[in-house]
Amino acid sequence: MKQAIGIDIGGTKIAIGLVQEDGTLVHSTEIETPTKSRDAVLSAVVDQVKQHAHTASAIGIGSAGQIDVNQGIIRSGTDNITDWNNVPICEYIQQQTNLPTYVDNDVHTFLLAEKGAHKNVLALTLGTGIGGAAYIGGQLLSGEWGGASEFGHMSVNFNGEPCNCGGRGCVEQYASGIGIHKRYLKAGGEATHAGEIFSRALAGEKRATRIIDEAEQALSTAIVSLIHCYNPSHLILGGSVATKQQGFISSVMEQVSQRGMSSLVKPVTYHVSQKEYAGVIGAGLLAFEREGKA
Amino acid sequence: MKQAIGIDIGGTKIAIGLVQEDGTLVHSTEIETPTKSRDAVLSAVVDQVKQHAHTASAIGIGSAGQIDVNQGIIRSGTDNITDWNNVPICEYIQQQTNLPTYVDNDVHTFLLAEKGAHKNVLALTLGTGIGGAAYIGGQLLSGEWGGASEFGHMSVNFNGEPCNCGGRGCVEQYASGIGIHKRYLKAGGEATHAGEIFSRALAGEKRATRIIDEAEQALSTAIVSLIHCYNPSHLILGGSVATKQQGFISSVMEQVSQRGMSSLVKPVTYHVSQKEYAGVIGAGLLAFEREGKA
Repeated sequence: MKQAIGIDIGGTKIAIGLVQEDGTLVHSTEIETPTKSRDAVLSAVVDQVKQHAHTASAIGIGSAGQIDVNQGIIRSGTDNITDWNNVPICEYIQQQTNLPTYVDNDVHTFLLAEKGAHKNVLALTLGTGIGGAAYIGGQLLSGEWGGASEFGHMSVNFNGEPCNCGGRGCVEQYASGIGIHKRYLKAGGEATHAGEIFSRALAGEKRATRIIDEAEQALSTAIVSLIHCYNPSHLILGGSVATKQQGFISSVMEQVSQRGMSSLVKPVTYHVSQKEYAGVIGAGLLAFEREGKA
Repeated sequence: MKQAIGIDIGGTKIAIGLVQEDGTLVHSTEIETPTKSRDAVLSAVVDQVKQHAHTASAIGIGSAGQIDVNQGIIRSGTDNITDWNNVPICEYIQQQTNLPTYVDNDVHTFLLAEKGAHKNVLALTLGTGIGGAAYIGGQLLSGEWGGASEFGHMSVNFNGEPCNCGGRGCVEQYASGIGIHKRYLKAGGEATHAGEIFSRALAGEKRATRIIDEAEQALSTAIVSLIHCYNPSHLILGGSVATKQQGFISSVMEQVSQRGMSSLVKPVTYHVSQKEYAGVIGAGLLAFEREGKA
């Protein structure tokens, strides 16, 4: 069976693996991200890739941030890596390895690892921020240059507070880890991260309960809007908030099924990702997906 | 050049025409919609179609409402036609004419008539209600059964008033003709339709100005969310509000370019449809689009 190299570049770790066309992970390694410079990251990646280059037919890369999928450029990646903007990563790795190389946003590649047999599916990652991906009509949606599916920056309140994206009242301000934390502090609470606020809401603290209830309403509203837009059959949830806050996710999905057009929201199933190496697997699958279209 | 029959079924008129693959309208007729029964509509359509059936290779239909594009069924159409729900329109017309027949929502077909060479484009019709369509990666998005692109029912206010769709604070409640009219009445004003309220806002009436300003903010917020979701290069606007209220549309699009992620919103161009027979042409083009995939 054909194999591709999947690379998942994060701000703290880089995971690299050999992935089969059916999504089986044959081998994987993890290294610490050398955050001090762009060149350090690129040469660390090439070092790892070269160990597998003889058995693979292509390379797929998943990276946080805005990715130009047509040009193979990381337009704006994680702030953790120095000078990690406008990186022509595909051109560089292709030159060093002689293998066709593709890159996409890491939530888009995550979706590829998790979509199963669904032809119309959305992915939402709920962590410090909120990321998104859409696979509709059997096609991973990129849009004009690859910037599609910024679901964290759908507004759920047009009179809301300004968001760093330039908009107002984005769902990320209400329902991401950072958003929940900020709103709790602003309401006069003290906590070091969102996990504490979830725990306090469960324990019945009024302030925390109000913030979490609002997160639930904002997130379910955004998910209903997404279902109205894309008519998916399935929803994939990932990220630390999804994996750790099961009660929260159940309430959100219960609200989703009760709001909105029943013909669209009722049939939608969902699962929370449990796959440990979804990032690497999805990156490998991206290479097969793009090779199929080349 | 190949020709298809395009049929645009509305609550008051049905337009039928012969359309070339390049979008040229060769011939067209319009009849009053026989609203008294489903059978009256279907036989009127078949009568018209038979006049052109010998020169066409396929039939495309655009209809308001929820359309099951896989089964060729109008799930819920306009209330103006008696018993116009769950109509297996493709099966019926195919049997009567022996031509392959396809149906889709009329905003989806409108987009096909207006998209030009764009590969990533959204359409929004702003009339009594708000409709939508998305063409991304060179593909008309249908979703699981054809219910995609209900852009009027994106929420812009998760604490807003209940909408008849089941959601809350949908953009249609703020920026459609009916929405603007309702909000003006609720604010204590008197008017017979939205057009009057636009005129009074232009004349400086405070109440009307407040309602129209709110419509502008709600609509620009929804459009920014759509651009964040789909990364289109272009936006098509249609419907009576778009064609008649040029100042309103200019302000909305000015706000769009200033809100949201600049990498996504800045490059988006737009036009307001001026094509008289976009409905018929789009329906004809739908037939070619689907034949190409069959």
